[in-house]
Amino acid sequence: MPQGAAVQIPVSTLPTVSTHIYPRGALDVLSREEVARLRDASAGGLHDLLRRCALAVLTSGSASDDPRAAQELYPDFDIQVRQQDRGVRIELSNAPAMAFVDGQIIAGVAELLFAVVRDLAFTAIDLNGDEELNTSSGITDAVFRLLRNARVLHPADPNLVVCWGGHSIGQEEYKYTKQVGYELGLRGLDICTGCGPGAMKGPMKGATIAHAKQRRRRTRYIGITEPGIIAAESPNPIVNHLVIMPDIEKRLEAFVRMAHGIIVFPGGVGTAEEILYLLGILLREENAGRRFPLILTGPTGAAPYFEQIDRFIRLTLGDEAASLYEIIVADPAQVAKRMSTGIRKVKEQRIEQQDSFFFNWAMHVPLEFQQPFSPTHELMAGLDLHHGRKPHELAADLRRAFSGIVAGNVKEDGMRRIEAYGPFEIHGDTDIMQALDSLLRAFVEQRRMKIAGDYKPCYRVVS
Amino acid sequence: MPQGAAVQIPVSTLPTVSTHIYPRGALDVLSREEVARLRDASAGGLHDLLRRCALAVLTSGSASDDPRAAQELYPDFDIQVRQQDRGVRIELSNAPAMAFVDGQIIAGVAELLFAVVRDLAFTAIDLNGDEELNTSSGITDAVFRLLRNARVLHPADPNLVVCWGGHSIGQEEYKYTKQVGYELGLRGLDICTGCGPGAMKGPMKGATIAHAKQRRRRTRYIGITEPGIIAAESPNPIVNHLVIMPDIEKRLEAFVRMAHGIIVFPGGVGTAEEILYLLGILLREENAGRRFPLILTGPTGAAPYFEQIDRFIRLTLGDEAASLYEIIVADPAQVAKRMSTGIRKVKEQRIEQQDSFFFNWAMHVPLEFQQPFSPTHELMAGLDLHHGRKPHELAADLRRAFSGIVAGNVKEDGMRRIEAYGPFEIHGDTDIMQALDSLLRAFVEQRRMKIAGDYKPCYRVVS
Amino acid sequence: MPQGAAVQIPVSTLPTVSTHIYPRGALDVLSREEVARLRDASAGGLHDLLRRCALAVLTSGSASDDPRAAQELYPDFDIQVRQQDRGVRIELSNAPAMAFVDGQIIAGVAELLFAVVRDLAFTAIDLNGDEELNTSSGITDAVFRLLRNARVLHPADPNLVVCWGGHSIGQEEYKYTKQVGYELGLRGLDICTGCGPGAMKGPMKGATIAHAKQRRRRTRYIGITEPGIIAAESPNPIVNHLVIMPDIEKRLEAFVRMAHGIIVFPGGVGTAEEILYLLGILLREENAGRRFPLILTGPTGAAPYFEQIDRFIRLTLGDEAASLYEIIVADPAQVAKRMSTGIRKVKEQRIEQQDSFFFNWAMHVPLEFQQPFSPTHELMAGLDLHHGRKPHELAADLRRAFSGIVAGNVKEDGMRRIEAYGPFEIHGDTDIMQALDSLLRAFVEQRRMKIAGDYKPCYRVVS
Amino acid sequence: MPQGAAVQIPVSTLPTVSTHIYPRGALDVLSREEVARLRDASAGGLHDLLRRCALAVLTSGSASDDPRAAQELYPDFDIQVRQQDRGVRIELSNAPAMAFVDGQIIAGVAELLFAVVRDLAFTAIDLNGDEELNTSSGITDAVFRLLRNARVLHPADPNLVVCWGGHSIGQEEYKYTKQVGYELGLRGLDICTGCGPGAMKGPMKGATIAHAKQRRRRTRYIGITEPGIIAAESPNPIVNHLVIMPDIEKRLEAFVRMAHGIIVFPGGVGTAEEILYLLGILLREENAGRRFPLILTGPTGAAPYFEQIDRFIRLTLGDEAASLYEIIVADPAQVAKRMSTGIRKVKEQRIEQQDSFFFNWAMHVPLEFQQPFSPTHELMAGLDLHHGRKPHELAADLRRAFSGIVAGNVKEDGMRRIEAYGPFEIHGDTDIMQALDSLLRAFVEQRRMKIAGDYKPCYRVVS
Repeated sequence: MPQGAAVQIPVSTLPTVSTHIYPRGALDVLSREEVARLRDASAGGLHDLLRRCALAVLTSGSASDDPRAAQELYPDFDIQVRQQDRGVRIELSNAPAMAFVDGQIIAGVAELLFAVVRDLAFTAIDLNGDEELNTSSGITDAVFRLLRNARVLHPADPNLVVCWGGHSIGQEEYKYTKQVGYELGLRGLDICTGCGPGAMKGPMKGATIAHAKQRRRRTRYIGITEPGIIAAESPNPIVNHLVIMPDIEKRLEAFVRMAHGIIVFPGGVGTAEEILYLLGILLREENAGRRFPLILTGPTGAAPYFEQIDRFIRLTLGDEAASLYEIIVADPAQVAKRMSTGIRKVKEQRIEQQDSFFFNWAMHVPLEFQQPFSPTHELMAGLDLHHGRKPHELAADLRRAFSGIVAGNVKEDGMRRIEAYGPFEIHGDTDIMQALDSLLRAFVEQRRMKIAGDYKPCYRVVS
Repeated sequence: MPQGAAVQIPVSTLPTVSTHIYPRGALDVLSREEVARLRDASAGGLHDLLRRCALAVLTSGSASDDPRAAQELYPDFDIQVRQQDRGVRIELSNAPAMAFVDGQIIAGVAELLFAVVRDLAFTAIDLNGDEELNTSSGITDAVFRLLRNARVLHPADPNLVVCWGGHSIGQEEYKYTKQVGYELGLRGLDICTGCGPGAMKGPMKGATIAHAKQRRRRTRYIGITEPGIIAAESPNPIVNHLVIMPDIEKRLEAFVRMAHGIIVFPGGVGTAEEILYLLGILLREENAGRRFPLILTGPTGAAPYFEQIDRFIRLTLGDEAASLYEIIVADPAQVAKRMSTGIRKVKEQRIEQQDSFFFNWAMHVPLEFQQPFSPTHELMAGLDLHHGRKPHELAADLRRAFSGIVAGNVKEDGMRRIEAYGPFEIHGDTDIMQALDSLLRAFVEQRRMKIAGDYKPCYRVVS
Repeated sequence: MPQGAAVQIPVSTLPTVSTHIYPRGALDVLSREEVARLRDASAGGLHDLLRRCALAVLTSGSASDDPRAAQELYPDFDIQVRQQDRGVRIELSNAPAMAFVDGQIIAGVAELLFAVVRDLAFTAIDLNGDEELNTSSGITDAVFRLLRNARVLHPADPNLVVCWGGHSIGQEEYKYTKQVGYELGLRGLDICTGCGPGAMKGPMKGATIAHAKQRRRRTRYIGITEPGIIAAESPNPIVNHLVIMPDIEKRLEAFVRMAHGIIVFPGGVGTAEEILYLLGILLREENAGRRFPLILTGPTGAAPYFEQIDRFIRLTLGDEAASLYEIIVADPAQVAKRMSTGIRKVKEQRIEQQDSFFFNWAMHVPLEFQQPFSPTHELMAGLDLHHGRKPHELAADLRRAFSGIVAGNVKEDGMRRIEAYGPFEIHGDTDIMQALDSLLRAFVEQRRMKIAGDYKPCYRVVS
Repeated sequence: MPQGAAVQIPVSTLPTVSTHIYPRGALDVLSREEVARLRDASAGGLHDLLRRCALAVLTSGSASDDPRAAQELYPDFDIQVRQQDRGVRIELSNAPAMAFVDGQIIAGVAELLFAVVRDLAFTAIDLNGDEELNTSSGITDAVFRLLRNARVLHPADPNLVVCWGGHSIGQEEYKYTKQVGYELGLRGLDICTGCGPGAMKGPMKGATIAHAKQRRRRTRYIGITEPGIIAAESPNPIVNHLVIMPDIEKRLEAFVRMAHGIIVFPGGVGTAEEILYLLGILLREENAGRRFPLILTGPTGAAPYFEQIDRFIRLTLGDEAASLYEIIVADPAQVAKRMSTGIRKVKEQRIEQQDSFFFNWAMHVPLEFQQPFSPTHELMAGLDLHHGRKPHELAADLRRAFSGIVAGNVKEDGMRRIEAYGPFEIHGDTDIMQALDSLLRAFVEQRRMKIAGDYKPCYRVVS
């Protein structure tokens, strides 16, 4: 990448630019009061968040995806939203020079920056302390309004493919995501991802080439992120619509509501969690019969990865769960064809059921999928991983178990909890727990979950 | 006009169409809850209002401007907003056939109809019972939000000329308004009026021809109306942006905030009131130095009309008030040139003072200009029409006196009050009251105020 | 019309502007050599023609349609095409001020002016002395290339209605043409006329309002004229595509090749000639079965006019000829509906026969219809107006007879010939000649053919 | 690249598609006669050429750049232009499946295919046997008309950078061309190259990313090729405007006339020849003072390459020649900045000298630069490589010498001539000839000129 050179330059001399810019788009027609609230919000508790997200955007396309790097490389960076009589002015101090050309900010970077300000302000101003956020329909409504405010909902024909997968995959897998993106793009499909590198960038890059060849001008490369992720996974430079959801759960709901189909590429434990999240929703009785193309795919080398996941799902959730997805190995054109066909059927169903094209209102997402799960020993002990439960409930608990175990192995506060209180106690059938264990071991072996030293289970089974 | 023929057809056979349409634009991306509220609002107290406004729009361009006519000609017309699973569907029963071509609604009529639903819904849902409507800045904010929701605010170069004047002017005056509109259009200016016939249609019509000759494609013919007026003054067919403000005062504020300049054509007493309203604002100290091109113009035959108004203003409000406007007789090109120059200076001032181009935040409009005035005997007796008051206060009271006297002469409830309680008692200097009286007599003579029988003052002066 | 005032100003003070402009569109990418040829052509024999046509365009929209007026009102007007190093520059001296706004030429007028230069240059440079102009297919090819060079051929869906009719019709008829244009416009149809006033302006004006109401932005108001006509019939201000064909016959062929349907409004003898021209083509065996919607229409008052024409056609050419058109009286909506249906069938036929949408190649137009007819005594004596001939041949001769008789009555050189050599001798059956005679008398009575004094036949029948 | 996989599939099973398509763009409004000529031309002598060029386009983006590969891989491929009543239909038999998606041709590939038909037809129909091709201005005019017909001339602001360089450069150099393209694209510049791989693809690819980031939608990636080259250097998939000039000399002139500046990347002997061609033109007295930004650039590893060329030019043509270009090593941003500044000055000069923006008419290109040079022994012996000649004459002869020597070393017929008649005899000063020799040796060492065995000079110096 052109700017790759930047990070090789010694830290002390990293070039910066200080300037101010005037927002366009969603921020250009604000009332006096809105401008004042925006300024106050960005000056108050929101400020550090704004600073971090802005920096992520301003270093978009950088070779490094180490979030701390950006913070350390540009220690003096700051952003302020000023009230300019009755307009908005964004002031940037010591901003990364890589976002500028001859002193002018790059148009696309400016757009992403406005998106950051817009979404953080919307969250701070319109959602904060909102009572409706305690109900399921209230949360869904908030997700809807945030997406609408970001202008990513519009009533065109269904063509949005959400792509999930790891951000630090290998070269073979990355190349494969580009090929799939290319085949999707040739068929007129737009791409939505988590907006970082790896499997989140490849499909967009492939689709860009294909869209250019097909002479499609109005293309959408939507990146949906959240404050904790964006700093670590700076938006790739292809993204032309960026949305910052308030937290991980609302981000996942945004994916599910906007997607006309989902493709899952190989990834780490996060990707596995996402699959369980989605199956937990699709398996609900309320969602039976709802069309939702779901394809797991990767290059030949990734075949074992998907076999393991498939085996684990069949064992724990049953063959019905496995019938909700299709696994395709090393055939990008086939992936795109199947997705294209699947989306055609989604369109038919939406028309038939008079549902909107741009937001999947009909999908039932229960409250427990909309609220954060924090893996304490108590909550982990409350999980119930036995055969015989309803598959969607088991899927939900499996996702939580997964999340807790990962935390106990690799996340700082999770590891500290294990040190302090010993391993989690998890209630479950032995075969399920063994399957979970061997899946995690495989991830470690394939370097998809990175741990220091040998893998040592951070839990013990209580049957 | 092509559809003129319609009203000659005997009432009983007026052709109608029953159909349903799906909204576009502001109404196409609504949440489940918004759709429900929209349906409820339109089914409840709002329904009759919606029905009347919709009918006005559906008979747009009709030869008749008699509001009752439409109501009587289409007695079975009805409109319903339905919740279509999670979308909106507008059902029309027995709608005027003139709004349709071969069974399809005319695109522009549909747009105006969506505007009606949009604005009434916005008012009902977002403004109703809002506490902020008790403060001046709260009302201004509501006006702003309503205009923004109607998508008529956008940050382009200042070029919007508001045209005021009578809706039932003579042929010579009507032709003159077209000529002025033509000259404005040649200079790239867009038009905003009250959206009815006469002086509200002429400038738009002239500008349409000029814009076509200048090959301007993105033109704005904005009509700003309110529920009590739209039924009587159906939007003319040129209007391509329609906004329905909640009441007369908010409509007047919308004009003042959006205008980059105002042209006043000959009109009736309503037009005179509007002039006094505007002078009452412009004369305030807070608004001193604020650029606001204001031109009074008409054909040769209208010269006496403007002379009388000018004389009245000089006598009552002084020469300073008269310095705020320019009178140009029978010179359309000169009107357009002066307006064009004036707007260039408005732009310079907005830039200099960092004010927005699309909404005149800096203009001070006090609360008493934002709230309705109902001319009871008590309030009329409270007016203070003496020399020596601050001009802007005197202008405000003159406007009220004017409004009350007109009501006492021509409006049903005003006339009833006079019958019941005798003439209003107005406190004021004799010369001012005489000037007022002779102005009103002139209006009666020129058939600008239509009364049955001879003119008899409905007030007496108490010095 | 706004500029109407101009002609009331005394001749001596008519304001003018001298300036230069740079062409856009077809003239903006020329080679060095083309520019040189363009300059030479416009400086040579072409210059007076260019001057006259340019003046017609620059006074477009003027109230007067007296061609000499413009020439006399702007005696010092001149136009020069200069070679600007390797570009084109058009210099205007003492041009009518009405074509300018504050010193800037009106964009649409400039476009028409470029069209004049473009077409006269094309004719002079590409067609002059071309041998192919001696063959029927050569002429058709030249017509095609001239229209393509004018960029009026493009492969969109058939929607072009050619309107014929008089340029000096009465108010009722003019209003009717507007109503028909309005109904055509509502149905998404574009208009092509001879580009002057009257029936050539009304349909465009009506369509403009309808297109605005239907929010159609890419509209076509095509005016096709020729050097002898444009000076007399200045393009009306609605025309946004102007084409100047080299002579009347090529202009007629352009109408026939471009039209997807033709509407004939009341007119003078010229209109009658056009009807006979068209029937002469449609009646040919080669053109049998070819769909070509042809509607004769006018307001109630015009009913007798069309009855006479219908009677004349039935008598002379037979009922088959009459079956090629439809007469609709006083029903604009019906006219538009029938035309719309007819054009749908034209489209089907073009698809079926793999013919282009934008140029009616399949229509057979024989050489004698492509070459000028000059009514000398000799040629008139050669006509053969007897029953029993093939209808299309008789139609052709009738058109010529008609043309000659009109010339003998109202055209300067025709009248001189009659004075010199006595009346034309025409060979024909008595009933045909009588029908012709009574048709002409009716035109005189209805003031559709303007003669000085009483009507006196300028021919005698030789059976 | 996504389709890379295709060439790994065994030849015998390469998938193909047979279908027909209808042209758009320049081919959609043709006359009957033009269609017939097009069909005849493509059926006659032109057919094999058409077939080869079409195949190159249909395999655009293929991993292989071996021209014979395509011919051998698709032996049954054929293309026919059919007259479809009065339209055009292109029939493809056994066309490479990689140009299709689910049976539909990729839009961009179709565009390139239409360009091939358009340009070969234009050459065959409009240029063949044209006498004007014997004069310098006639050739320039033909180049102009061909480019205009291809719709690549349009009067926008100067922003077209022509990039020259090798088609088979190394990875470091290729990456560098992308970085330069990226920096050019960030500054709003468009790219024109020879349309093949390597240095012809890199700048376009980099610019694509930059244009996307700058949200530029109307971008131009112009590829100019000629029949002998296109088959060997299939257009890369970024090209969105393709032009096929009749031969190498007209292609070079097209580059010079369209370029607002030229960047030369490292390349082989062909690139060196191009530099000498350009200097031969720029050094002419007629072209003195003409602004023409010329930058030689490459990554650090390419520094020696440009040093050698620079040294050779200074020795042979003098320091004045060297002052016409700038060498920038390993600094893409600086290259783009200098080019951007240079083009701004080109614009100023064009305005000042009233020259067109889109075609550099003012540049003098003499006839000997417009006509092919075939290196026979006789012509080689006629060269005059002595000091003291006018630099532009010496540059021209050096280019020819270069061309001949390369032919003698690597081109089949050149090598055969040397075998038959012994080495060329070249008249020149020893130091010049030695410089030439060491330059060639360096190329061989750097693998920029690929020869079998050791390098052995194919000429001897005759002083």
